Amino acid sequence: MEPRDDSVSPVLVEVTRGDGVESRHRGSVAVVDVDGGVHLSLGSVDVPVPPRSAVKALQALPLVASGAADAVGLDDRALALACASHSGEADHLTLVADMLAAVALGVDDLACGPSWPLGEAAARDLARSGRPPTPLHNTCSGKHAGFLVLARALGTGTAGYTEPDHPVQIAVRAAIEAVTGAAPTEPVVDGCSAPTWPITLGDLARGFARFGTGAGLPADLATATERLRQAVAAEPWFVAGTGRFCTEIMTLTGSRAFVKFGAEGVFTAAMPELGLGVALKVEDGATRACEVVMAAVLERLLPDLDLAPFVRPAIRSRRGAVVGVVRPGPVWADFPT
Amino acid sequence: MEPRDDSVSPVLVEVTRGDGVESRHRGSVAVVDVDGGVHLSLGSVDVPVPPRSAVKALQALPLVASGAADAVGLDDRALALACASHSGEADHLTLVADMLAAVALGVDDLACGPSWPLGEAAARDLARSGRPPTPLHNTCSGKHAGFLVLARALGTGTAGYTEPDHPVQIAVRAAIEAVTGAAPTEPVVDGCSAPTWPITLGDLARGFARFGTGAGLPADLATATERLRQAVAAEPWFVAGTGRFCTEIMTLTGSRAFVKFGAEGVFTAAMPELGLGVALKVEDGATRACEVVMAAVLERLLPDLDLAPFVRPAIRSRRGAVVGVVRPGPVWADFPT
Repeated sequence: MEPRDDSVSPVLVEVTRGDGVESRHRGSVAVVDVDGGVHLSLGSVDVPVPPRSAVKALQALPLVASGAADAVGLDDRALALACASHSGEADHLTLVADMLAAVALGVDDLACGPSWPLGEAAARDLARSGRPPTPLHNTCSGKHAGFLVLARALGTGTAGYTEPDHPVQIAVRAAIEAVTGAAPTEPVVDGCSAPTWPITLGDLARGFARFGTGAGLPADLATATERLRQAVAAEPWFVAGTGRFCTEIMTLTGSRAFVKFGAEGVFTAAMPELGLGVALKVEDGATRACEVVMAAVLERLLPDLDLAPFVRPAIRSRRGAVVGVVRPGPVWADFPT
Repeated sequence: MEPRDDSVSPVLVEVTRGDGVESRHRGSVAVVDVDGGVHLSLGSVDVPVPPRSAVKALQALPLVASGAADAVGLDDRALALACASHSGEADHLTLVADMLAAVALGVDDLACGPSWPLGEAAARDLARSGRPPTPLHNTCSGKHAGFLVLARALGTGTAGYTEPDHPVQIAVRAAIEAVTGAAPTEPVVDGCSAPTWPITLGDLARGFARFGTGAGLPADLATATERLRQAVAAEPWFVAGTGRFCTEIMTLTGSRAFVKFGAEGVFTAAMPELGLGVALKVEDGATRACEVVMAAVLERLLPDLDLAPFVRPAIRSRRGAVVGVVRPGPVWADFPT
């Protein structure tokens, strides 16, 4: 998949307990403009990494650019859900089912596999119901519903739509290549069975600079990026869920930032008004760390916003006492807010 | 808490997806004999780390050595539970309640705070019941019940039993010092509100070599270590739970290994027949990594056992396909099995 990475990435995040540092998270970050000009670079930004769910908005581009979304009247909420790692809350599930019904498909057509909801409260609600999880509850079911709407519009069969040689995935790959400028080779398999093509953080960041501005993109893709950004800015709950980082951040930023979490510590952002894109990967894959890294980047790029609760989330005992904090590591002192 | 650690620990664990490495976990390991002779050392073994639940067996020593456990007839299951990070399954909860009842106390006397069960199935069972989590469900409630039994035997009040200056914690600290030879200064606060005193991996490993053999310990502590080891070997389900690493490993090893997980990537083991102790810390705190590191150590120390499923656990898609593996990093090639 990628060349062997023997370099050592800096400590981007520290986890404290009392007065000391208990754990450390290393990683890499690229902040790049539409031409690939480097605004900030830490760690290994030239090593391909599977971008996982951090490129769901790119995976949704053919759905919009092809006219498939408009043909069945997908609204802002549905487009946000097509870009989502949702929490599996009731309104997420209802809308995924509606998207499938719009093209005369159902839960059995989803190839993402069943899973318990990503959201803890939603998972407990499902447990309380006594019903088992289905593919609808899978955090990627909105993306998969988007794939299926696209498959219908392409006039191709829906079977095997997660295979890399299916017309849906060929279109997805072409969009990712067009936006990032990368020419990835072999994909690996994401948790939801869709292909994910390893791409360097540098290329991902440039891609999200373009996603945020449309610069350098064909007209149909440029229009599609704007449509998706507006949809998510209008309906940020549908791209994640109650209390989730992406939803909370974009509720604060509106259309000034488009941020998207991915598994194994990947995170991307588009900053339209700044003409910048962000891509980061925490070496060990920890979600708590990639969120703090993204918050530290956003704090520097949007200094008028108060992002302190996201930059330094507290660690509490089971009785609720603050016993530590997750915080940016010493390397960030070189990049003052 | 600890001196600033600027050294770089080796990659102990790799997480693959397809043919490539997606994530990496760094960390430190010490395998030491009863005199502190180093059998294996990787990374920073001289930096104090909060040992968290990996020293629960040491925290339980005063309960046994004082005679408190025998005074109320605690059996093997109860002693294992006093050393446990249990999953919160029904038989765990019943036994914690029984331990409390034996000294005329109840759930309201537990200072660990409420939490959802650590075990996923147990958490779903509780959600299905519609009842909220209580301190009984806290993975540390067995340890706390042990603290309370000790408090009763000491004739001291139970209020404030998690404060470092309470007689219970003074006794616990003395036992930890006696076994590890460390003289820790200020404790930090564990997730269950008990104090946890930072100790180097080297001292912890030597301590667990002594815990496994009794070598160099006062007679009362040596007897207590043997009693606790035998209890956990006889009842390994009570020290963790269904499908959990510690339970599964000790079901295989019996009394040949005593292994104990701790939060933030800490793990310890005593190897009585080898006269060795093990202590490790994954830099980023990941549970998936510290389990694989412990399995890699055990594979080398107990080569007659088949530990492959623990050394290289599969990563599966939501549809159940194997898409990657968690495995020991390249550094382990220097220490062949």
